[in-house]
Amino acid sequence: MIEKLVLTGAGGRLGSYLREPLSKMAEELVSTDLVDDIGTLYAGETYVKADLANYDEVFAALEGADMVVHFGAIVDEAPFEELLGPNFVGAYNVWEAAYQHGAKRVVYASSIHAVGMHAKNECIDTEVAHRPDSFYGLAKCFAEDLGRMYWDKRGLESVHLRILSCAQVTSARALGSWLSYDDLIQLVTRAVDTPTVGFSVVYGVSNNDRSPVDNNKAAFLGYRPKDNAEQFADAILAKEPPADSTDPAQMCHGGPFSAVDLGESGLAQMNIVDDRKKN
Amino acid sequence: MIEKLVLTGAGGRLGSYLREPLSKMAEELVSTDLVDDIGTLYAGETYVKADLANYDEVFAALEGADMVVHFGAIVDEAPFEELLGPNFVGAYNVWEAAYQHGAKRVVYASSIHAVGMHAKNECIDTEVAHRPDSFYGLAKCFAEDLGRMYWDKRGLESVHLRILSCAQVTSARALGSWLSYDDLIQLVTRAVDTPTVGFSVVYGVSNNDRSPVDNNKAAFLGYRPKDNAEQFADAILAKEPPADSTDPAQMCHGGPFSAVDLGESGLAQMNIVDDRKKN
Amino acid sequence: MIEKLVLTGAGGRLGSYLREPLSKMAEELVSTDLVDDIGTLYAGETYVKADLANYDEVFAALEGADMVVHFGAIVDEAPFEELLGPNFVGAYNVWEAAYQHGAKRVVYASSIHAVGMHAKNECIDTEVAHRPDSFYGLAKCFAEDLGRMYWDKRGLESVHLRILSCAQVTSARALGSWLSYDDLIQLVTRAVDTPTVGFSVVYGVSNNDRSPVDNNKAAFLGYRPKDNAEQFADAILAKEPPADSTDPAQMCHGGPFSAVDLGESGLAQMNIVDDRKKN
Amino acid sequence: MIEKLVLTGAGGRLGSYLREPLSKMAEELVSTDLVDDIGTLYAGETYVKADLANYDEVFAALEGADMVVHFGAIVDEAPFEELLGPNFVGAYNVWEAAYQHGAKRVVYASSIHAVGMHAKNECIDTEVAHRPDSFYGLAKCFAEDLGRMYWDKRGLESVHLRILSCAQVTSARALGSWLSYDDLIQLVTRAVDTPTVGFSVVYGVSNNDRSPVDNNKAAFLGYRPKDNAEQFADAILAKEPPADSTDPAQMCHGGPFSAVDLGESGLAQMNIVDDRKKN
Amino acid sequence: MIEKLVLTGAGGRLGSYLREPLSKMAEELVSTDLVDDIGTLYAGETYVKADLANYDEVFAALEGADMVVHFGAIVDEAPFEELLGPNFVGAYNVWEAAYQHGAKRVVYASSIHAVGMHAKNECIDTEVAHRPDSFYGLAKCFAEDLGRMYWDKRGLESVHLRILSCAQVTSARALGSWLSYDDLIQLVTRAVDTPTVGFSVVYGVSNNDRSPVDNNKAAFLGYRPKDNAEQFADAILAKEPPADSTDPAQMCHGGPFSAVDLGESGLAQMNIVDDRKKN
Amino acid sequence: MIEKLVLTGAGGRLGSYLREPLSKMAEELVSTDLVDDIGTLYAGETYVKADLANYDEVFAALEGADMVVHFGAIVDEAPFEELLGPNFVGAYNVWEAAYQHGAKRVVYASSIHAVGMHAKNECIDTEVAHRPDSFYGLAKCFAEDLGRMYWDKRGLESVHLRILSCAQVTSARALGSWLSYDDLIQLVTRAVDTPTVGFSVVYGVSNNDRSPVDNNKAAFLGYRPKDNAEQFADAILAKEPPADSTDPAQMCHGGPFSAVDLGESGLAQMNIVDDRKKN
Repeated sequence: MIEKLVLTGAGGRLGSYLREPLSKMAEELVSTDLVDDIGTLYAGETYVKADLANYDEVFAALEGADMVVHFGAIVDEAPFEELLGPNFVGAYNVWEAAYQHGAKRVVYASSIHAVGMHAKNECIDTEVAHRPDSFYGLAKCFAEDLGRMYWDKRGLESVHLRILSCAQVTSARALGSWLSYDDLIQLVTRAVDTPTVGFSVVYGVSNNDRSPVDNNKAAFLGYRPKDNAEQFADAILAKEPPADSTDPAQMCHGGPFSAVDLGESGLAQMNIVDDRKKN
Repeated sequence: MIEKLVLTGAGGRLGSYLREPLSKMAEELVSTDLVDDIGTLYAGETYVKADLANYDEVFAALEGADMVVHFGAIVDEAPFEELLGPNFVGAYNVWEAAYQHGAKRVVYASSIHAVGMHAKNECIDTEVAHRPDSFYGLAKCFAEDLGRMYWDKRGLESVHLRILSCAQVTSARALGSWLSYDDLIQLVTRAVDTPTVGFSVVYGVSNNDRSPVDNNKAAFLGYRPKDNAEQFADAILAKEPPADSTDPAQMCHGGPFSAVDLGESGLAQMNIVDDRKKN
Repeated sequence: MIEKLVLTGAGGRLGSYLREPLSKMAEELVSTDLVDDIGTLYAGETYVKADLANYDEVFAALEGADMVVHFGAIVDEAPFEELLGPNFVGAYNVWEAAYQHGAKRVVYASSIHAVGMHAKNECIDTEVAHRPDSFYGLAKCFAEDLGRMYWDKRGLESVHLRILSCAQVTSARALGSWLSYDDLIQLVTRAVDTPTVGFSVVYGVSNNDRSPVDNNKAAFLGYRPKDNAEQFADAILAKEPPADSTDPAQMCHGGPFSAVDLGESGLAQMNIVDDRKKN
Repeated sequence: MIEKLVLTGAGGRLGSYLREPLSKMAEELVSTDLVDDIGTLYAGETYVKADLANYDEVFAALEGADMVVHFGAIVDEAPFEELLGPNFVGAYNVWEAAYQHGAKRVVYASSIHAVGMHAKNECIDTEVAHRPDSFYGLAKCFAEDLGRMYWDKRGLESVHLRILSCAQVTSARALGSWLSYDDLIQLVTRAVDTPTVGFSVVYGVSNNDRSPVDNNKAAFLGYRPKDNAEQFADAILAKEPPADSTDPAQMCHGGPFSAVDLGESGLAQMNIVDDRKKN
Repeated sequence: MIEKLVLTGAGGRLGSYLREPLSKMAEELVSTDLVDDIGTLYAGETYVKADLANYDEVFAALEGADMVVHFGAIVDEAPFEELLGPNFVGAYNVWEAAYQHGAKRVVYASSIHAVGMHAKNECIDTEVAHRPDSFYGLAKCFAEDLGRMYWDKRGLESVHLRILSCAQVTSARALGSWLSYDDLIQLVTRAVDTPTVGFSVVYGVSNNDRSPVDNNKAAFLGYRPKDNAEQFADAILAKEPPADSTDPAQMCHGGPFSAVDLGESGLAQMNIVDDRKKN
Repeated sequence: MIEKLVLTGAGGRLGSYLREPLSKMAEELVSTDLVDDIGTLYAGETYVKADLANYDEVFAALEGADMVVHFGAIVDEAPFEELLGPNFVGAYNVWEAAYQHGAKRVVYASSIHAVGMHAKNECIDTEVAHRPDSFYGLAKCFAEDLGRMYWDKRGLESVHLRILSCAQVTSARALGSWLSYDDLIQLVTRAVDTPTVGFSVVYGVSNNDRSPVDNNKAAFLGYRPKDNAEQFADAILAKEPPADSTDPAQMCHGGPFSAVDLGESGLAQMNIVDDRKKN
């Protein structure tokens, strides 16, 4: 049994679902997030408030960790400046602190948006090239490349879960992209309990008839989803507006993210302050 | 003829070589760097001091640009915190400002270090997966993914020149990895004068007998290097110490970068300040 | 719900099975074939007699169509001259008329015979190169290339159903190639109800243990066949004559078509009359 | 030495260049075209007027042929109805008559337009999927699939020369796509003199720096072009209008054909008359 | 029904399981091994003692065989000298004798150890390159290449069953690699009853959630395993020692064989005596 | 400079050409073969008589070797029994003895016949699957797999030179397959002087226009052949008999070996005596 697991983003929507099952997989679960309090704790769970963008706080939260399940991030598209701290630097902080503490593995909530500009009628496997559809997706690409490097150079393992849509099924796209909560839990469980993983990528999607991605190359992880969004197909398709095959939102894996404008950063003042060098 | 070209990193080693040829390819060349002065200017050249990590300065320097030749960066491995501003945020600033000004293309000095952990006895082409060997290489991966996204979402073209070793030939590795200055100039010229490029990647290496990379998939760019480091082979190999096939520096494409430790960031305080949000 | 569907070949063996389910997927189903009458019509169904080789008749039949399910053709190997009208020109007429009427999609009964000369012990996916085994198969290749072009150039979608053997299971080959009628209906249903398909290819085969083709790359269509010819295996294999591994009929995907001679056209007089130019 | 070669399209622009060299490769060269007369004949050459769309005339022209060099066709985009006879049926007539006469091989003038919708910044090799950009290109796809079948089923060899642009260099595209007349002659010579070819595809392009295609997989044919359009680059690029990266004419391999509308066939009356069946 | 089957290694652990089912698939089953006696025979079974390393004995045992199920070998890693007779020369003797007797097919017990040095987080399919992890695995590579040649040159079919671990599940690795006895029997049955197989490779593994190999390319064989080692996962994982991601035994497909030293042959005297030449 | 090189097969046709250049690449060259004497020795060369099939003799000959250039073998097709000693066991003896003596690398004379059953109109690269055309080729497959294992398990490097035809150009096939002696020497030189090679494969063929193989993946070795058999083309092709495209000798990479029967081993008595176990 694992001695100590750390879960980042424990107060978030997906993180909340993971706290209980993860608390049972380790003697000690350290949950962490930006909020002051995440409510009643499970047996074996403790809570540490930490800002992912602050290395010291991340370093402190990860002390003694055997594995980190890293779900903390801004979980929507946002201007690059807003994502830079929590999503980019936050990923670096988690990997670097995990390494410094001798952790064995990072399990990371990556996303379909790392490859969202691929056409949906081209089935993508886990080795397809990065084609981010948003700054949110670009941060996922960054963390995957970071994880690859920490494995190649330092032997720190990572599993990158490219989650499609872990939410209610309300659109035709979700008939393919749905990841049920039960399947999310199975996916994270396998990412944790597989003895060795090296650097691995796997799509987080249920066993939907219309799933548009291919997990064959990650077969050794043993992820076998059980749920299937096809149960919702008749209802969804009956009310779906006519599809437009010139719309990236319909033709690309990233769905709405593939179509949305990247936003305008205007005249943003962005300064990177490296306080270490000031000391 | 191009009306206005911008060259970043104009005061650097490679940038210095590019100023004259680029000044002849456009009516106006704006050179930019961190220093106060880069010496005598070529006909049509002006100099603008700008910090890549500062969006406003980059935005001002790129005003009216048709293309940007982006060579500015810290050009060695360094702690992530040090590279974050110039190499990561700097790349974002260049692409975003180029887009805001309606530029057609960014020509980017990427690097073999974006894929440096691949084994050297496996010839890599321009579609091989990212395997950075350093934070320096990770920044190149980031900029390539960024460029892919700006092309997919916004139609801003980019050519990513994965330069191997543009320096004197002093080691057995350089017999394969050498890029002569003349070939560098040809490479940048082709990246600028090819009418349309979309998103493209090409290795920057001379016509060395021992070149370990494959540019076939970028053939349309018309890069045909002329120089060949084999002229130095006898002298170099005669004094080369015995090779060690367990050493990543010898077995990986990244050479010394593939072997060097990533460095320790210790207890660095890193804060990302987004001043825009403060206003 | 789709307003108007057109089904060609409605009087044929497979077309007959599709009339009822298609009549339920659209407010209006127009069935068409060469015969005068196809019997009792389903609710919402009308019948139009039309010769696929005659553009005017096809144009009239497709008026107002949202989608065309194109199953009309000579459905066996025949001399090229006999197939030219219904199978080649007929395909052109359907795509062109569909485009002229602003239809969104053509669902096409392609065939394994478009790729029938591949060896059966090489599993073929939906991107394998064309290797027709007959003029019949060559017409399928033609229509697939035509469909690719209408999507690339004009945005008219198409799904190409490469049907293996939609008939009773009476041979060892059919243990792998069988497509049950229920699975055929599911396949056509998914080809119609998937919101966007671009240009897609999918094999029409049941969930047979011995299915020799791979639909992974068409996964987004959500075709999940239910039937399995293995139920017939013991009976079939018990009476199967000894196999001959030098016989293309046994070693190739096309089965008997792979072995049959192409036939001799002798001194056929074939004239292509383009009456339009005469006007 | 070959006893009898037949050249179709001998009166066309490319055919005219081939007459002399082909007349030297065989004891007898039969040139054929639609015109009454192609001028002074070379030693060993005879001329036979024949309409490719008429099987009897093709059959007569090919009597005793060892090889057919098939360059006859409408050599521009045209409505499908106009191409059907000479380009589609004509190809069938040539292959079928060649087979009936026991010929060993057809050397065919295919075209880049068979694959013209592929993006030009993706280097295409000789196994890339068909993506025709025009009805003209679709006819080339048809003949390639036909040739594949006659080899697989009947052992009739063919080499498919996908010619890019065998014409004066007057555009930036032609800097990559140019095929000089000398290189055309070398290409056809190798397609004829290589002892066995099976079914093969090779791009017809000179040794241009900017050639966007990859002939590696056809290396055994020994085609090594000598000319290079780069000699025209400065002059061409100086007067080239600004490129538009949203224009298929600039971004696709087919160039202008990739952008041109497919044309409207309107209410064409097209009837296929199979006179054989009437007898 | 098959007239005569020969089973080598009939006295071994796996062979013993196969005797009964194979005896039902043929009118006559000849079981053979090195021992004097394999106990009570099944209906239709006869036993012949034969040394695989002796061609005459193999030739005699295979007289009249329609197929050979070749499971005889030293079934563990051993010095090359010990494996040379039974595993290398034995395979040659079986294929050559099968050919001389006009047999149709050899079904061969190959092994994951033919490809055991591939990393386990890279899913391997049936076309992956040989990377043996032991002399035992090297003998499997030899027999696969031998089988390929006898098919290419002489039309003798073979199916190569790359068995993972057909034994009790006692380690985390076996959760992925387990082949149950029932699934072994199904696998051999399909390898025998499929009418034509040419040269084929298929992995012998149950339907384990964590199966690390991909049989898609052998789909036509119809092997659909039923058992799943996941039933043992909780018990096994609870007592599994911490995994070491630097250990080939944990990171490679071959498991312990991937880590074990090849052994030292020291000053072995090995003489190959070709008695035929002496006569 | 290398201290000690060992060359096996030094008395053979190719070995004889290599003695002088290899004697200059090392302080000491040990040449070895089965004969008593190989004539006048070069400076630094010594001769040791050794039978490759005898481990003790090989072990003695390789004492202190830094590298072994292994060209010794029966260099023609022969019955398996005859090749078993020198070609199979001989390869094992060389690798094992090299490892025991701490050598860095084996440079091995492999052959096109390891992959000779591939069709010649399919260009093969250095990663193509083994398809031996003869027992001679099968021995090359064995040594390549052996070399792969010694690298993976023990870090002993090897370069496998798949020589096509190192002999006078007397047939149309040789126009593509010719390896000149000068190019052979360059090839072996690069295989020796490249600092690290891991496990590598490279085709040994000159820079022939009609070379049918692709060395791109071995580019790092820097082999750039200079000679070109096209100089002999006119003379050869003029007298070449008509080609037969049903003849494996003409259609396969292995040429005559692809067509020759494997020979009949009859009732050969073959016994493998492992004397070590007797002691």
